[in-house]
Amino acid sequence: MRIVLHMAKVRVAVAGASGYAGGEVLRLLLSHPEVEIGALTGASNAGQPLGALQPHLVPLADRVLEPTTIEVLSGHDVVFLALPHGQSGEVAAQLGDDTVVIDCGADFRLRDAGEWAKFYGGEHAGTWPYGLPELPGQRQELRGARRIAVPGCYPTVSTLSLAPAVAAGIVEPRVSIVAASGTSGAGKAAKSHLLGSEIMGNASAYGVGGDHRHTPEITQNLSALVDETVAVSFTPLLVPMSRGILATCSADLRAGHEVDAEEAHAIYAQAYAHEPFVHVLPRGQWPQTKSVIGSNALHLQVTVDEVAGRLVAVGAVDNLAKGTAGAAVQCMNLALGLDEGTGLTTIGLAP
Amino acid sequence: MRIVLHMAKVRVAVAGASGYAGGEVLRLLLSHPEVEIGALTGASNAGQPLGALQPHLVPLADRVLEPTTIEVLSGHDVVFLALPHGQSGEVAAQLGDDTVVIDCGADFRLRDAGEWAKFYGGEHAGTWPYGLPELPGQRQELRGARRIAVPGCYPTVSTLSLAPAVAAGIVEPRVSIVAASGTSGAGKAAKSHLLGSEIMGNASAYGVGGDHRHTPEITQNLSALVDETVAVSFTPLLVPMSRGILATCSADLRAGHEVDAEEAHAIYAQAYAHEPFVHVLPRGQWPQTKSVIGSNALHLQVTVDEVAGRLVAVGAVDNLAKGTAGAAVQCMNLALGLDEGTGLTTIGLAP
Amino acid sequence: MRIVLHMAKVRVAVAGASGYAGGEVLRLLLSHPEVEIGALTGASNAGQPLGALQPHLVPLADRVLEPTTIEVLSGHDVVFLALPHGQSGEVAAQLGDDTVVIDCGADFRLRDAGEWAKFYGGEHAGTWPYGLPELPGQRQELRGARRIAVPGCYPTVSTLSLAPAVAAGIVEPRVSIVAASGTSGAGKAAKSHLLGSEIMGNASAYGVGGDHRHTPEITQNLSALVDETVAVSFTPLLVPMSRGILATCSADLRAGHEVDAEEAHAIYAQAYAHEPFVHVLPRGQWPQTKSVIGSNALHLQVTVDEVAGRLVAVGAVDNLAKGTAGAAVQCMNLALGLDEGTGLTTIGLAP
Amino acid sequence: MRIVLHMAKVRVAVAGASGYAGGEVLRLLLSHPEVEIGALTGASNAGQPLGALQPHLVPLADRVLEPTTIEVLSGHDVVFLALPHGQSGEVAAQLGDDTVVIDCGADFRLRDAGEWAKFYGGEHAGTWPYGLPELPGQRQELRGARRIAVPGCYPTVSTLSLAPAVAAGIVEPRVSIVAASGTSGAGKAAKSHLLGSEIMGNASAYGVGGDHRHTPEITQNLSALVDETVAVSFTPLLVPMSRGILATCSADLRAGHEVDAEEAHAIYAQAYAHEPFVHVLPRGQWPQTKSVIGSNALHLQVTVDEVAGRLVAVGAVDNLAKGTAGAAVQCMNLALGLDEGTGLTTIGLAP
Repeated sequence: MRIVLHMAKVRVAVAGASGYAGGEVLRLLLSHPEVEIGALTGASNAGQPLGALQPHLVPLADRVLEPTTIEVLSGHDVVFLALPHGQSGEVAAQLGDDTVVIDCGADFRLRDAGEWAKFYGGEHAGTWPYGLPELPGQRQELRGARRIAVPGCYPTVSTLSLAPAVAAGIVEPRVSIVAASGTSGAGKAAKSHLLGSEIMGNASAYGVGGDHRHTPEITQNLSALVDETVAVSFTPLLVPMSRGILATCSADLRAGHEVDAEEAHAIYAQAYAHEPFVHVLPRGQWPQTKSVIGSNALHLQVTVDEVAGRLVAVGAVDNLAKGTAGAAVQCMNLALGLDEGTGLTTIGLAP
Repeated sequence: MRIVLHMAKVRVAVAGASGYAGGEVLRLLLSHPEVEIGALTGASNAGQPLGALQPHLVPLADRVLEPTTIEVLSGHDVVFLALPHGQSGEVAAQLGDDTVVIDCGADFRLRDAGEWAKFYGGEHAGTWPYGLPELPGQRQELRGARRIAVPGCYPTVSTLSLAPAVAAGIVEPRVSIVAASGTSGAGKAAKSHLLGSEIMGNASAYGVGGDHRHTPEITQNLSALVDETVAVSFTPLLVPMSRGILATCSADLRAGHEVDAEEAHAIYAQAYAHEPFVHVLPRGQWPQTKSVIGSNALHLQVTVDEVAGRLVAVGAVDNLAKGTAGAAVQCMNLALGLDEGTGLTTIGLAP
Repeated sequence: MRIVLHMAKVRVAVAGASGYAGGEVLRLLLSHPEVEIGALTGASNAGQPLGALQPHLVPLADRVLEPTTIEVLSGHDVVFLALPHGQSGEVAAQLGDDTVVIDCGADFRLRDAGEWAKFYGGEHAGTWPYGLPELPGQRQELRGARRIAVPGCYPTVSTLSLAPAVAAGIVEPRVSIVAASGTSGAGKAAKSHLLGSEIMGNASAYGVGGDHRHTPEITQNLSALVDETVAVSFTPLLVPMSRGILATCSADLRAGHEVDAEEAHAIYAQAYAHEPFVHVLPRGQWPQTKSVIGSNALHLQVTVDEVAGRLVAVGAVDNLAKGTAGAAVQCMNLALGLDEGTGLTTIGLAP
Repeated sequence: MRIVLHMAKVRVAVAGASGYAGGEVLRLLLSHPEVEIGALTGASNAGQPLGALQPHLVPLADRVLEPTTIEVLSGHDVVFLALPHGQSGEVAAQLGDDTVVIDCGADFRLRDAGEWAKFYGGEHAGTWPYGLPELPGQRQELRGARRIAVPGCYPTVSTLSLAPAVAAGIVEPRVSIVAASGTSGAGKAAKSHLLGSEIMGNASAYGVGGDHRHTPEITQNLSALVDETVAVSFTPLLVPMSRGILATCSADLRAGHEVDAEEAHAIYAQAYAHEPFVHVLPRGQWPQTKSVIGSNALHLQVTVDEVAGRLVAVGAVDNLAKGTAGAAVQCMNLALGLDEGTGLTTIGLAP
């Protein structure tokens, strides 16, 4: 016999419920046992039923979107912000300090106001606790937090794929990341170059040469692990799938500290041995995005190319789940003192 | 405060755990609160860890497949059979009458031994209660059953998309079904024409003109609703997606009983008003497979083409979920007296 | 030794060169030996180099789009109009009668002004010779024509897939068409529901119940073959591919005139025996869109379902090639007295 | 008036006509004005009509595959070998020295017998002129050649994307290549992990850490440009498309010789200024595979990441066309003294 204390549920609002990030937050919250879904807001979609915009969320089909105002959002225990970059600051400022505010946007990720201005434009809103509990020391910072910045999707997989090697000092502080992404990371706003007709059967590069907004975030994360700036060459690719990022991350072995593939694998396995959502695969098995779709898992493998003198790690993540909404729910759990994995799964949807 | 009696969990085995149907049964069982996963078996894959074959099922990654023998499968409360057609009969015959046996294959679906021999070859194994609880009177037959035949994926969506119209007598007993399917319905066995290179960017027809094995099953289902044989023209298509079936079903309006679109919609809405997994969409909104991927939901819409004098209904289902493994779990719940929806969801994975 | 008279090339303009239809016209014209490409026009894209909009058309990369005006378009031997529906009439009216004007839009396809108004809105511009030379008597009408209306993509494949059966009187005059299409038929204008994220992994129905604009065009084509109105139930599907339509067309066998599969195939084979671009496959082989991508070929197969008493024909076509731009070039060849297949191919791009 | 000498056509045989490489050679040869297609051979498919195996090659539908024997292949001016790796040597040895033999396999690409044995196994067959005319001095070697080894698909795009930078000495001799490929490069043999169900919606890495067979070929090519061994870190990815490779290539800027993006672009533009099939895009426009599908073009862009101190070049190629069969035809043209581009196009098939 098991006794469960049936406490009042946590009341949650989602601002930006018609987009991909907002929809994924809702998909996860619908199976979260401690949550009651409150207000759902939209911008131009306010007034429409959610069933017309997110037809996969059947239990919420008749819910009508409200405008994103402080009146609508106040009175909830938790507010998820899934708004366009630059819009979270103003909303958050109006929500009380006792409300847990979790920003799925970029507004509060970067510490350097100059980098913010360079990559996003406008004034820097500030810096919140960074929602990547798998980074050293970071989980503690998120427990009980009332403001959390969810990492970008590329930074999540890139950082976790390189962190053990960088932290262990087995690679030179110059890393290269080529990350193939599905298109949902680009959002639901209509753009010609993201049409199905353009995307299917097509792979393309964009934001090459350091132009992508996630570059400074990855640099910030990796540099924080060591006493020096890590040079990050980051190239994002669009490939024909809706969800998922596969990040190929490499760096020269540190001269004089060369490890072999087995040692590298052991370092990674140990680094994530107690992480519930980072799954270092058995040696020889390489990640695929399909294994993690819909889940909060990140699959990871590492090897050493002894001929080229280079460590290569490959990580796979669902950009909308662990890459955004799953991390957001994981952070909410930490903020509320719930079990970190409540409402989340490590099981992907395949085939 | 809520008190939960923590009874012993139901112990479940899955025969054919390395294929798509078996993998999907496991994916669903892993989030089923009343189930404990027992033996997993394979044929040529016996001896391999499941993580190498189904890398998305992380919690079972270290489980090793056993051979499909009576020794391995006995001692479980429930056995799911996800075997090639024609292999279930022999296994089932050796399992005790108190074991719930749920066959995801075709062996026990058809009542007519001649049809079985024509479409599948070999001897007819028999007929089990048919696992489509949404058919009139069928749910009662499944409660407490110890042998259940899970319907084929095409028959599930085709039958439920046409049943209200056929049963209400508003269409002539000659129906046409064109069902566009993802490729996972064809299984995981390697075949050249199912290679990604062949499938992507390609739509094709097969089994045209009544040649597909699911034709007699659909005919059996629809004819049972009325006092006559319903003529079924069934054309399956392969389209470039892994999961999902979209079935376009039509029939001439019955002469003298013509309904309009609103009346047809009302008949459908009423027919499924109390069904937890059949979701008749609001008028004007048409189904898409993406809304039901990974879920046990079937989305449905119907209209009347007054110029052509024809009723057209379109249903969407995930062939592996409600089309196979979801139905199997739904049936298990009924057989065991659990809540029918335990471990299942109506929420699809989109985008 | 062969002697070739090197005549002055035909000078061709393309209005709407930045869209999918215009781009495909250009792709074909670039390998047409008798053509010289003149003005290229766009609307909002005027002023941009074609290389930024159609990067696959390398030889035209530096060409700059001009506005769609009579000044720009005049002075060419042939003008292709690839404009939004409703815009061709005004442009065409200003072009001289000696200019060959080929409209890839819908403006001049329908004979019935009421149907035009119902499905497209606005005033009916008129009716031009219909650019489907494979219809009985139609080729003669196109030779030397100065105005040609290119058929819609769905009507092309639907009409040619059903015409032999309808004309031979072996089916009842009530046909059902379910046509799975790639997304390029919906054009290049940015719309959320056509984003890659929405389209990939998804099949959906739209325009069901006679709502699609191509329904009256198909009805017009088939009814013209016989002395009665053919009832057309037409359902278009969107499936995850850029190009291609697979049309599944069926009709009840005409009572008292039942043919079997072999007879049906013979009727089709004979009907298209001399057509260079219609390829009736050997019995038992079913069409796939991939075989015709990029080509002007239409692949076709037919059978009879004797149990259901229904003829089923399946046709595959590239919506942008034979379905639009290929037909346009084929019509231009006829209009100019060139060999009908000049610059066209029957060879698809696979895999 | 133009006078054309109508010489006897070149008679060509294709060994391995049922596979992807052989099919693509035939697709190109069918539009080559100087070629007559002779014997077509297969292994297990001998005796079947080509129409059943390559339904897109309509003009050859009735051709029957013959066995791959010297009797069948002899008597042709040119023989293309599209055989599994390791099988070309024996066939080629039996063909006369006056026959042009073009091997699409790997047998004669590598100079180092040890590398061959390590990556392919078995005995090294020898080294033939390497069919990449865009490499310095290479075109001359191919003119009039009677044996030509067509490069691998990955090496073609990787080598040409890095060659100008390596040759100019503006990068350190340690390069990183991450190449996202469609699945047709893996061939038409049925393998479970290449099924459409596995591939769609999925990105994965394989052959990581120097394990892929194309690594030594890329190393051989780049090292030949300079007086030192270039260290090559090569990671291939499978992404959900049939055709195309997008290679992201990077290297640290050479210390003391740092160039900026404009200088790098100028070096690339100059290197390929006279190459008919290498298209360096205008600055700011990045390659996409769709622009080159079906064509012999390679699209290329380069930039410099000044923060990371790294040059990044991205190349796109159709693995079956310029990556295999297009290069083979280009080489045939050079061997026969024809115009290098005969029968080839720079125009891709998009969308």
